[in-house]
Amino acid sequence: MSMTDGRNRVVIDGVTPRVDSGEFPIKRVVGDTVDVEAVAYGDGHDVVACALLYRREADAEWAEVRMEPLVNDGWKAAFVVEEIGRYRYTVAGSVDRFATWAHDLAKRVGAELDLSVDLLIGAELVEAAAARASGSDAARLAAVAALLRTGGGEAARAALAPELAGLMARYAERPFVTMAPELSVVVDRERARFGAWYEMFPRSAATEPGRHGTFRDVEDRLADVAAMGFEVLYLPPIHPIGRAFRKGRNNTPAAGPDDPGSPWAIGGAEGGHKAVHPELGTLEDFRHLLARAADYDIEIALDIAFQCSPDHPYVREHPEWFRLRPDGTIQYAENPPKKYQDIYPFDFETGHWRELWDELKSVVDFWIEQGVRIFRMDNPHTKPFAFWEWLIGEVKKDHPEVLFLAEAFTRPNVLYRLAKVGFTQSYNYFPWRNSKEELTEFLTELTRGPVREFFGANLWPNTPDILPEYLQYGGRPAFVTRLVLAATLGPSYGIYGPAYEQCLNVALGPGREEYLDSEKFEIRPWDPDRGSSLAGLVGRLNRIRRENAALRTNQNLRFHSVDNDRLIAYSKSTEDRASQVLVVVNLDPNHGNAGFVELPLDELRIDPRQPYQVHDLLADRRYLWYGPRNYVELRPEVGQAHVFAIRRRVRTEADFDYYL
Amino acid sequence: MSMTDGRNRVVIDGVTPRVDSGEFPIKRVVGDTVDVEAVAYGDGHDVVACALLYRREADAEWAEVRMEPLVNDGWKAAFVVEEIGRYRYTVAGSVDRFATWAHDLAKRVGAELDLSVDLLIGAELVEAAAARASGSDAARLAAVAALLRTGGGEAARAALAPELAGLMARYAERPFVTMAPELSVVVDRERARFGAWYEMFPRSAATEPGRHGTFRDVEDRLADVAAMGFEVLYLPPIHPIGRAFRKGRNNTPAAGPDDPGSPWAIGGAEGGHKAVHPELGTLEDFRHLLARAADYDIEIALDIAFQCSPDHPYVREHPEWFRLRPDGTIQYAENPPKKYQDIYPFDFETGHWRELWDELKSVVDFWIEQGVRIFRMDNPHTKPFAFWEWLIGEVKKDHPEVLFLAEAFTRPNVLYRLAKVGFTQSYNYFPWRNSKEELTEFLTELTRGPVREFFGANLWPNTPDILPEYLQYGGRPAFVTRLVLAATLGPSYGIYGPAYEQCLNVALGPGREEYLDSEKFEIRPWDPDRGSSLAGLVGRLNRIRRENAALRTNQNLRFHSVDNDRLIAYSKSTEDRASQVLVVVNLDPNHGNAGFVELPLDELRIDPRQPYQVHDLLADRRYLWYGPRNYVELRPEVGQAHVFAIRRRVRTEADFDYYL
Repeated sequence: MSMTDGRNRVVIDGVTPRVDSGEFPIKRVVGDTVDVEAVAYGDGHDVVACALLYRREADAEWAEVRMEPLVNDGWKAAFVVEEIGRYRYTVAGSVDRFATWAHDLAKRVGAELDLSVDLLIGAELVEAAAARASGSDAARLAAVAALLRTGGGEAARAALAPELAGLMARYAERPFVTMAPELSVVVDRERARFGAWYEMFPRSAATEPGRHGTFRDVEDRLADVAAMGFEVLYLPPIHPIGRAFRKGRNNTPAAGPDDPGSPWAIGGAEGGHKAVHPELGTLEDFRHLLARAADYDIEIALDIAFQCSPDHPYVREHPEWFRLRPDGTIQYAENPPKKYQDIYPFDFETGHWRELWDELKSVVDFWIEQGVRIFRMDNPHTKPFAFWEWLIGEVKKDHPEVLFLAEAFTRPNVLYRLAKVGFTQSYNYFPWRNSKEELTEFLTELTRGPVREFFGANLWPNTPDILPEYLQYGGRPAFVTRLVLAATLGPSYGIYGPAYEQCLNVALGPGREEYLDSEKFEIRPWDPDRGSSLAGLVGRLNRIRRENAALRTNQNLRFHSVDNDRLIAYSKSTEDRASQVLVVVNLDPNHGNAGFVELPLDELRIDPRQPYQVHDLLADRRYLWYGPRNYVELRPEVGQAHVFAIRRRVRTEADFDYYL
Repeated sequence: MSMTDGRNRVVIDGVTPRVDSGEFPIKRVVGDTVDVEAVAYGDGHDVVACALLYRREADAEWAEVRMEPLVNDGWKAAFVVEEIGRYRYTVAGSVDRFATWAHDLAKRVGAELDLSVDLLIGAELVEAAAARASGSDAARLAAVAALLRTGGGEAARAALAPELAGLMARYAERPFVTMAPELSVVVDRERARFGAWYEMFPRSAATEPGRHGTFRDVEDRLADVAAMGFEVLYLPPIHPIGRAFRKGRNNTPAAGPDDPGSPWAIGGAEGGHKAVHPELGTLEDFRHLLARAADYDIEIALDIAFQCSPDHPYVREHPEWFRLRPDGTIQYAENPPKKYQDIYPFDFETGHWRELWDELKSVVDFWIEQGVRIFRMDNPHTKPFAFWEWLIGEVKKDHPEVLFLAEAFTRPNVLYRLAKVGFTQSYNYFPWRNSKEELTEFLTELTRGPVREFFGANLWPNTPDILPEYLQYGGRPAFVTRLVLAATLGPSYGIYGPAYEQCLNVALGPGREEYLDSEKFEIRPWDPDRGSSLAGLVGRLNRIRRENAALRTNQNLRFHSVDNDRLIAYSKSTEDRASQVLVVVNLDPNHGNAGFVELPLDELRIDPRQPYQVHDLLADRRYLWYGPRNYVELRPEVGQAHVFAIRRRVRTEADFDYYL
């Protein structure tokens, strides 16, 4: 404690929201309100005044909002983040001499004590404020001060008038202000929170079997992707693929001459992370694809995997970025007994780590220059956290609109740390959360616990690496169930297609989650006959997501009781309750299930004495419900889910009106 | 984040115990174990090693304890604080290259892979360790390294042998170590936690009515105080008392010529905070009292009230330390409409605050020089927190054995802040926590919540300022009940006597908690006829407290269910369960109550298949109890409480033995 703080009588602890001790920023999207609370108090009985201060990080000046007192020394205020980038906020507190004086004066008036000296004290405070004010305020304050100096009943009335309190709040001296440590909020565009993602392999974009797909073929698929209503089209790495130790079909060690290899074995004679795989087209073709996608309001997300094939130019030009083994070879990736000889990890413990970091940032910068604004970072949990904190921080300084998705399926602390150091979104355990209990616990942690301040979950029922057992054995109804859950539980969700909409469910073997004949190692042409697929359902769901604001956020996600463990029910609402969605899903892919859903009518602001309408947006059917308990029945052969818009009854036709 | 951290791959978050973000020290007493836990993890799959580091603040070198892994990236270790003063502790984490290598090698051995290159990598690690070791360890490591270089089965066995793991843990390179922010622990002597306090006014120490008591009279009372078993004798201020605006009996505005005034109106012609009230004796007399008390193993605690009577020398010598009013008078203490014209508060916002702080510290130093080691600071919540943090910190630098009790009855945040900034102990809401629910909630917060790390509660059923309603209307049984609760719920507790043992219960008026004819304003001679008082019970309780280690701490305080809300039951145990005490108290001063007490036998380590003995240490009666539910009946006319030692059955006479 510095000796210069000796007269600061107010202490502030516990400003929220914050992440941990405030060492990491909270996250919001543009237009969000940041509700700030603090605990602040002084010694003695003096009245304390607190202000919320906030500013864009680039600005020098704080904006100030007077905080309202809560119980138990609590204070609250709010500010709206109107631009992307970083904001800072903090709380300032001090003793309010005038309010203390006025508070005591009121008690003295009540006790009919002599006020003469007290009014003189007040006059001095008001005169000091008058000296800081100007114009009519200064004149008004000077007039009141003069009145106070006269003493007597009129002076006391003027002293306690709300008008004077307002003027003094504006101009009063605030000596010895205590400032809480500054906190940060990263403000992103809405896509950071809300978006439906579609993953596809561009080399599989051709419709004719046997032909390597190109960026042009991807352009031809954009209409399908747009018809399904996706906002983000995510492409695995598009760089040259190495030949050394290239993997064959189904991850076999020896590739045949026509095997295309894994797109994650990055780099060859044609170039590395800043080059395009020649069979996909040119960099110009890629930029053309970006532009065409934009016409469909689709944004391209690029996969960046910071690792090299043995043929990558870096291996030759910068052997110091890799770990050398005693036999002179470079250490390949392995997780014994599994070996990935086609992939060299970078050695982040190299003495040349600064140059390595700079080069890796230049890769991201390169693709930003081409127009990419969303990056899906491969396996970030195998690179140092400090690297990501630096990389994402530096990139967002110049490009706060850039978003990063962490492809990390790992332990909770690691997942959360990656989010804290800067990742906008993250993969997570959703693929393995299937029961009502699992889903409830998992989503409650994400949306109600402290992680909600920094962790953006992107829910994927499948990925090229993960075909969960639930999908393997549940048939089409399982795909419907998981799709509805992902699309309605996650403001951000994604599917790896066309495997998903075509309900591909054959794994590499028993107990495996790898797809048989995975696209990671071979080309699987786009199926032109998509009539029997889930594409129609996907499109409906994504349209419902866009049209119902409640599904764009996870604020106010609440799970509701159903007297059947195979049925899950939950609702979401916007803060103003203008949009309220209730979802009921059958978690059992094999059997129909029925039960009574129990709703907290007061929380949903439904009049318990009136019927209300639930409108199933999937089937476009409307039901009249009565009271908190209502019957629901879902059968795989008809539909696995209701996605209801709740329409509170406002008036009936009997009183000449409708549902709102 | 500094760029030099770039290769630190381990991150540490959440080291506990700590207060808030670690800005305040935790508190312990000598001999305590500090159980440290941390969450630490690295990127990737490498094995992490964590160490707990600790040192006395004065030492330069850390002692190091290897931490054991827990689930979910948790780690734990412990250290013992053996001396009073401050210790520092932190956690260091790094990637353990050798353990990572050995872990992978074991998997390779299991998969029968070729090990030749891996054994060479291991040989390099072991050779590097050998270079850091010396003597036989160095030789042994060199021998193993040579063996590893030979390759083959024997080399793999040696590589995975526990002996090598132990040597490598000692000598392996630990590059890129991450250190968590350092934390502090203040270590006090046991009196910081455990002690029975007795408050008395020295001027009332004479046994003849009408005579002003002296320090010599207090010496004559020491035998009584010792017989009651108190460890601390606390005296209200002993300084000269001002004459200006002196208060009369029952706080009346005008004192008569013989009224002694309030001891808290400090300072007169005879001196201020470093002087002794002449009628009590001399400074030498006071030192003599300290020595005599020490003979009885009684420590004197002194009241320090940082405020002045208008006659205090400071008022004349340092008017700049007080607030001047526009009429030229000095601002007296007031809480409108109440006025305390006999007391001037210091103005801590004075420009001369540094000189003021120094002078106030010199007061504490003065009394330390006389031999005082416990201070009860009056109304600390009306002085700046920063002042206390500085004062207590500075005093304890030279005198870590000094303890400070905060006389603060105020809002929880303020109470807790005073403890955080350094107060050893604090008054609290105990006087107003009377029902089972109130007591359970209050003590659970103090002993199980985060405040346990820094807040030392001292439980007082009464003080010269507080005669609670429960005591006013409950008669002698109420005094028994509250005494037993304070003495057994609080390792530290105190009573203001002789008002307490004599069950004085007459308040100044209805709805008031002030004593009628309070000793604050008049002399009440010591009652020589103490036969009918609670002194005997107090003595028994304090002996039980000393003899049963469970009552010296609040670790393992647990409340137990009783099917009658007028009965409260709780137990305390030492960590090793050698001492276990069960207390059952009748909270109803008017009626007998009975009920079944339900005990968690496994937690108390009682064999549910065997009877066990509960030995009432107050009545010296033994009961055999069976199973978890046992009947208890308490009646005001017999006794309001059981204080049971739980004696677990070890053997019976049938097998020729006894209870332990």
